[in-house]
Amino acid sequence: MAGTSTPAMAAAVSNAGGLGSIGVGATDAAGAREMIAGIRAASNRGFNVNLFCHRPPVADAARDRAWIEELRPLFAQYGAEPPSQLREIYRSFVEDDDMLAMLLAERPSVVSFHFGLPSAERIAALKQAGIVLLASATNFADARAIESAGIDAVVAQGYEAGGHRGVFDPAAPDEKLGTMALTRLLVRNLSIPVIAAGGIMDGAGIAAALVLGASAAQLGTAFIACPESSADACYRSLLLSACAAKTVMTAAISGRPARSLANKFTAFGETISPERIAAYPNAYDAGKQLNAAAKAKGETGFGAQWAGQAAPLARALPAAELVAQLKAEMDAALKGYL
Amino acid sequence: MAGTSTPAMAAAVSNAGGLGSIGVGATDAAGAREMIAGIRAASNRGFNVNLFCHRPPVADAARDRAWIEELRPLFAQYGAEPPSQLREIYRSFVEDDDMLAMLLAERPSVVSFHFGLPSAERIAALKQAGIVLLASATNFADARAIESAGIDAVVAQGYEAGGHRGVFDPAAPDEKLGTMALTRLLVRNLSIPVIAAGGIMDGAGIAAALVLGASAAQLGTAFIACPESSADACYRSLLLSACAAKTVMTAAISGRPARSLANKFTAFGETISPERIAAYPNAYDAGKQLNAAAKAKGETGFGAQWAGQAAPLARALPAAELVAQLKAEMDAALKGYL
Repeated sequence: MAGTSTPAMAAAVSNAGGLGSIGVGATDAAGAREMIAGIRAASNRGFNVNLFCHRPPVADAARDRAWIEELRPLFAQYGAEPPSQLREIYRSFVEDDDMLAMLLAERPSVVSFHFGLPSAERIAALKQAGIVLLASATNFADARAIESAGIDAVVAQGYEAGGHRGVFDPAAPDEKLGTMALTRLLVRNLSIPVIAAGGIMDGAGIAAALVLGASAAQLGTAFIACPESSADACYRSLLLSACAAKTVMTAAISGRPARSLANKFTAFGETISPERIAAYPNAYDAGKQLNAAAKAKGETGFGAQWAGQAAPLARALPAAELVAQLKAEMDAALKGYL
Repeated sequence: MAGTSTPAMAAAVSNAGGLGSIGVGATDAAGAREMIAGIRAASNRGFNVNLFCHRPPVADAARDRAWIEELRPLFAQYGAEPPSQLREIYRSFVEDDDMLAMLLAERPSVVSFHFGLPSAERIAALKQAGIVLLASATNFADARAIESAGIDAVVAQGYEAGGHRGVFDPAAPDEKLGTMALTRLLVRNLSIPVIAAGGIMDGAGIAAALVLGASAAQLGTAFIACPESSADACYRSLLLSACAAKTVMTAAISGRPARSLANKFTAFGETISPERIAAYPNAYDAGKQLNAAAKAKGETGFGAQWAGQAAPLARALPAAELVAQLKAEMDAALKGYL
């Protein structure tokens, strides 16, 4: 939830007994340090810092230009010019020494990786600093790599999940494993704890994840409509409307497959072949500019309105209240079988 | 599980305390009557008869011929000629009066529908005969239609599930809802009981489904390797091998999307565009003939080796023993939270 998670939300979740998270993939070491300070100003509990570990894109100006041309008519619809070139707007943690140094200095209790893993040296340094490490897997091969790398727990990210698929190799065919199947397969085959993610929006879902053998559940979409998130008004209202029932997996917005509420951008994504899209995060540079141009003309359908398949169960509650409700619902769901 | 479920398996499951099922979509009223007699010879418990309710295909000889030509090189590889035309090998229950009359006479305790619903008249007749009715839904619209039609319970078929997707309209975009998300969405939004299906292979999975609010779980792939199933030796051994980890959704085998173990047929399916495939069940006529031709030359990769995403958890146990283990595992999974 880089871009929608906030220090206030993470602090509220941790204070309420959950493990609050901030996504820092969209910022640099200084920005992340500031977010960490924000959490610490509001909570003395542990929290998680989520990092993007995508393979940095190989410079390919021709591919970027082709994608810019593909988007030109959309920009034109909103009276705008597309950028003349695309920038690598997010630096991968795998090559960000400043971020590593900051984490080793700040020592958040938990750090999680998405899109892959950093080097063995980085993992060793973070572990030596006493930081618990998590990483997302969408399939068995990635999960095995996570276990082999000495990561403490794996996040089983089912196909239901909103936002970016954590696939290590976005060019490989996606197995699209659902949360129910993936969680159970990893619990049965790995020796490290499994955290279930995807399609979990209430306490019954958390309880089901635990009964499947997961050690915890990770919820993202459930927190988007909290007042502490930085989701904009349109994203919030869509999520709480009948539109929440339709989500689409698309790489068109950012360059990597991600699940968004159905909107003009996902509809455009369905008309193009995935090979034409610029690499992540370069495509995201274009996507964000297109969204800004459209929004300037009152069109909100080009936002990255990430949401999972169970989005219709979203609630607009303060994060602390939501955590309390999730806990009560979880207890009730499990007590039904006493 | 039309084609792999057997009266012996259904009887064994029902005798062990489950609800045994036979799929009769691949046979006619006389064949189905014989299967029912087979169950009754071995069990006096209730059982379920599953029917296909696909919209009957509109005759389209040109489309069928184009598909035959598409398959010709594959037939040629095994020294065979493709058929000159395709037959509608499975009659939909929506227009099968003999099947209806047989069911009203035999009165199995439960009848379930896949691919859609029969007419209100047929539903009323079956209900009046005291038969409990179930129907599969893969999305919210189909589930609502099932509830509105007065069906007693809905099977929430998640994207993980093996075999044919129960989508009412195979031309509509597939929402690919995972079992976790779909089950919870239907439990929260419908007033009829929900039966979770897809990715459930052991008692922990069943327990998780119940905790999600489902009233029951439906398992298919879990029973394929039972000695009572009619799966052939190759299908069984694939299911119990490392190959079980890869399943693919394809319409190439039958004309409707279905999840199979990855094999030569699913690989071929990935090379063609779905619009070219003949309608269900005509494409299945071609697919079955191709499989027969390939098998005659020792190639088993063209079978309809249906399996769900959690297939690696399959066990080769007698059905009664499997049901007993599932029950024990379910109790253990729930007891963990006492």
